[in-house]
Amino acid sequence: CRCLEAIKNGTTPNIIIMLMDDMGWGDLGVFGQPSKETPNLDRMAAEGMLFPNFYTANPLCSPSRAALLTGRLPVRNGFYTTNGHGRNAYTPQEIVGGIAQDEVLLPEMLRKASYVSKIVGKWHLGHRPGFLPLEHGFDEWFGSPNCHFGPYNNSDRPNIPVYKNSQMVGRYYEEFGINLKTGESNLTQIYLEESLVFIRSQATTHQPFFLYWAVDATHAPVYASKGFLGKSQRGRYGDAVMELDHGVGVILGELRSLGLAEDTFVFFTSDNGAALISAPMQGGSNGPFLCGKQTTFEGGMREPAIAWWPGHIPAGTVSHQLGTVMDLFTTSLTLAGLATPGDRIIDGLDLTSVLLNSTLIDRPIFYYRGNVLMAVRLGMYKAHYWTWTNSMEEFKKGINFCPGEEVVGVTTHEQKEHTMQPLIFNLGWDPGEKYPISVLSPEYQTALQQITPVLEQHQKHLLPGVPQLNMCDLAVMNWAPPGCEKLAKCLKGPKSEPWKCHWPH
Amino acid sequence: CRCLEAIKNGTTPNIIIMLMDDMGWGDLGVFGQPSKETPNLDRMAAEGMLFPNFYTANPLCSPSRAALLTGRLPVRNGFYTTNGHGRNAYTPQEIVGGIAQDEVLLPEMLRKASYVSKIVGKWHLGHRPGFLPLEHGFDEWFGSPNCHFGPYNNSDRPNIPVYKNSQMVGRYYEEFGINLKTGESNLTQIYLEESLVFIRSQATTHQPFFLYWAVDATHAPVYASKGFLGKSQRGRYGDAVMELDHGVGVILGELRSLGLAEDTFVFFTSDNGAALISAPMQGGSNGPFLCGKQTTFEGGMREPAIAWWPGHIPAGTVSHQLGTVMDLFTTSLTLAGLATPGDRIIDGLDLTSVLLNSTLIDRPIFYYRGNVLMAVRLGMYKAHYWTWTNSMEEFKKGINFCPGEEVVGVTTHEQKEHTMQPLIFNLGWDPGEKYPISVLSPEYQTALQQITPVLEQHQKHLLPGVPQLNMCDLAVMNWAPPGCEKLAKCLKGPKSEPWKCHWPH
Ligand SMILES: [Ca+2]
Ligand SMILES: [Ca+2]
Repeated sequence: CRCLEAIKNGTTPNIIIMLMDDMGWGDLGVFGQPSKETPNLDRMAAEGMLFPNFYTANPLCSPSRAALLTGRLPVRNGFYTTNGHGRNAYTPQEIVGGIAQDEVLLPEMLRKASYVSKIVGKWHLGHRPGFLPLEHGFDEWFGSPNCHFGPYNNSDRPNIPVYKNSQMVGRYYEEFGINLKTGESNLTQIYLEESLVFIRSQATTHQPFFLYWAVDATHAPVYASKGFLGKSQRGRYGDAVMELDHGVGVILGELRSLGLAEDTFVFFTSDNGAALISAPMQGGSNGPFLCGKQTTFEGGMREPAIAWWPGHIPAGTVSHQLGTVMDLFTTSLTLAGLATPGDRIIDGLDLTSVLLNSTLIDRPIFYYRGNVLMAVRLGMYKAHYWTWTNSMEEFKKGINFCPGEEVVGVTTHEQKEHTMQPLIFNLGWDPGEKYPISVLSPEYQTALQQITPVLEQHQKHLLPGVPQLNMCDLAVMNWAPPGCEKLAKCLKGPKSEPWKCHWPH
Repeated sequence: CRCLEAIKNGTTPNIIIMLMDDMGWGDLGVFGQPSKETPNLDRMAAEGMLFPNFYTANPLCSPSRAALLTGRLPVRNGFYTTNGHGRNAYTPQEIVGGIAQDEVLLPEMLRKASYVSKIVGKWHLGHRPGFLPLEHGFDEWFGSPNCHFGPYNNSDRPNIPVYKNSQMVGRYYEEFGINLKTGESNLTQIYLEESLVFIRSQATTHQPFFLYWAVDATHAPVYASKGFLGKSQRGRYGDAVMELDHGVGVILGELRSLGLAEDTFVFFTSDNGAALISAPMQGGSNGPFLCGKQTTFEGGMREPAIAWWPGHIPAGTVSHQLGTVMDLFTTSLTLAGLATPGDRIIDGLDLTSVLLNSTLIDRPIFYYRGNVLMAVRLGMYKAHYWTWTNSMEEFKKGINFCPGEEVVGVTTHEQKEHTMQPLIFNLGWDPGEKYPISVLSPEYQTALQQITPVLEQHQKHLLPGVPQLNMCDLAVMNWAPPGCEKLAKCLKGPKSEPWKCHWPH
């Protein structure tokens, strides 16, 4: 193939991963959003390859992002907790842990092929020294280590810092405003500008680059800048989507103007399903899929995904390849002419043949919650070994991850084990996971016989990493990030009193 | 506008209406079907105009089809029942009524502009003499007056006839086989061939034509021909969709080869939402919308819709116009250079400016069940005055029009009246009708103030037609349709014993 030849000849492409936050499969026009307000993404799909069967590695931000950058399941890279059974954990301000030192991240690898790497936006792999992006292979960073929650009072709890490289340059709700009433914030515009500056500068130096555009306007509290507020049919959430879609258009347009379009592989996806708990005003749509963020139903883990690389990836194509965010690690390495690390298990597949030659690779998808394997997909079949939405106690408080979507025996409020007789769905004819296949049917037996050995193989070789998300401590919050002195923004935290974090979901 | 000029100059386009049966909004790739198995329809959309906000006039076959062909709501054209409150009625074999003699159908009108009209497929506007297509303006017919239910024993109940023009040429499950076990039937291929023959013959005569392609493979019992069975990821239903999609591609291709593409206006839509009660094996997908066929939630009445007329309708566009099947009546007349009948109320709008100049017309959508106005949509707001799925008695028997989609207080099993304080949804941010707007909010008041005068205006001028679907009688079934003698297929029916039809939904 011409393209792989080109790679071997040393003309490795630039790589841009556009990772959305809590954006759902159903939020893009090309994936069926009725409002059709994403013309730039729809055009990106028309010029590239659409993946309707693309997954995250966990239905929550931090583990998903850790998986993307390491190419490994959270249960291997340590982005999970053992404080409870089947609980999603992440990196709030009080988390003690973060990405382990012995994990190898994509930008660290790409540096070997002379790539310059920048992350713009949300990191979420730990905010303490040693966990930050520049310690893990990124050359530049503009963004934040945590979610943009707040505002806080800076006495019990500090506002979240915004970094430029290794220094804090301000805090959310202070230098970087988000108006919770109106939803106005110009952060997406700042993130766009930071990306354009990087791309232009790399175009001048002719060094290959990796841009990780981890924008977060679609994560509650949802925000958009003045020019986009009120523009969508879908409320504030839709405004945020429209602004991000616009950003995608600007970035692709910039690549074209700089003559880099044929030299840049761009992949668009999201870190987890739409947060139906915040919907509809601050949460998106998972299209026909069941439930949302926090769950291992399709709505929690199936992601919008588009690959774009004009002249290399055939335009206007659809690939039914089962893909995951971890594949972006492996695929990027291949595009950079690098091998994956040989000293550890990598879960990501190399999708270059899928992208360039439209092949299909048979592979399973594993749906984890914490270190519990909840479900496995193989081909069209998905077997649930555990089902859970959230506890009845939380549900009674109004926390509902599946609003208007109760499926009896499926969207359970107790952690229900089905390991002896998994609930199996055929996602081809039942993408909404509403009709479990009868255990008495030949189809059930066929599906089970296909999945069981894959499950056994996976579990036989599974050596869980050390869980990084067990301990919390108010002392570790962002009291005095590097750079705070210059800004006179150093705060004093309490004494260290670590506790086992409580993860209700 | 160039195009309207052309119309005025006498070069009126051919008209093809492709009306699917029980196909859902979510069944097309371009509307977000994950399997993306409709390349021809997706291409039709890329070459034409997509309507994400297009509606039928009733969530059941017969009234929907009567509305399309008369441009009038079923409550006006008589395609409803008064045997129960808010009941959907249709034309089963035992129905006494049919389309009233004083209704004016689209082909009758088009005849005035020298159009030749053919219906291929399902009629469903009454099967007794006087109700059939050739009595109402069609010049040719190949298809059937009823659904393809069966097989029957020809003693209590005759098999459904298939007509060629005014003569029966066989019956379903006899001359026209449908294998209920395998789902195999070549009917879609026959319907395709009948259409191609008509188009080719009209291309030769240079007389404008109207083709009403009313195929029904996606109505249970779902069928597909050998070449398509087992091809879809979605089971038998998906096979049927793929075969119909293929048919669309063949027809559009034929228009191109004959040089007629720029002279033919083609509109693709469906008669009601996907029948979730038959899903997933024999029913489709309504994408993000609530419930399905039989209901006045979006899933019951929002339809896939694509307009195609190369050189006239701008390619690759999306119109957010609220449209209905009744608009096809009025729009077709305008395209043919004809005025609508002046002696009656026509509910259909002329969409030519929408199609040719991308304008938007403000108009309401009325959701009826029988003669009960269940809901009204205006702009993004939908107000429900009555909610009902089906009776608890039917529901307990397993008849579920909203499987896995219970929304408390919305998908009610009693007929619940909300006329004093309608349930209002913002379909922009809540297309799934899951989050009623709080009656205490200013938005609720604004929405209500907009909708109330529209509702009052509608009801003030409403003069219901004589209900045609009240009486049933076994004697009127298809015992001896015209042409039965030649085939030696005349059956003897029972004596006339009319009763008031029972409409449970
Ligand atoms: Ca997220
Ligand atoms: Ca129908």
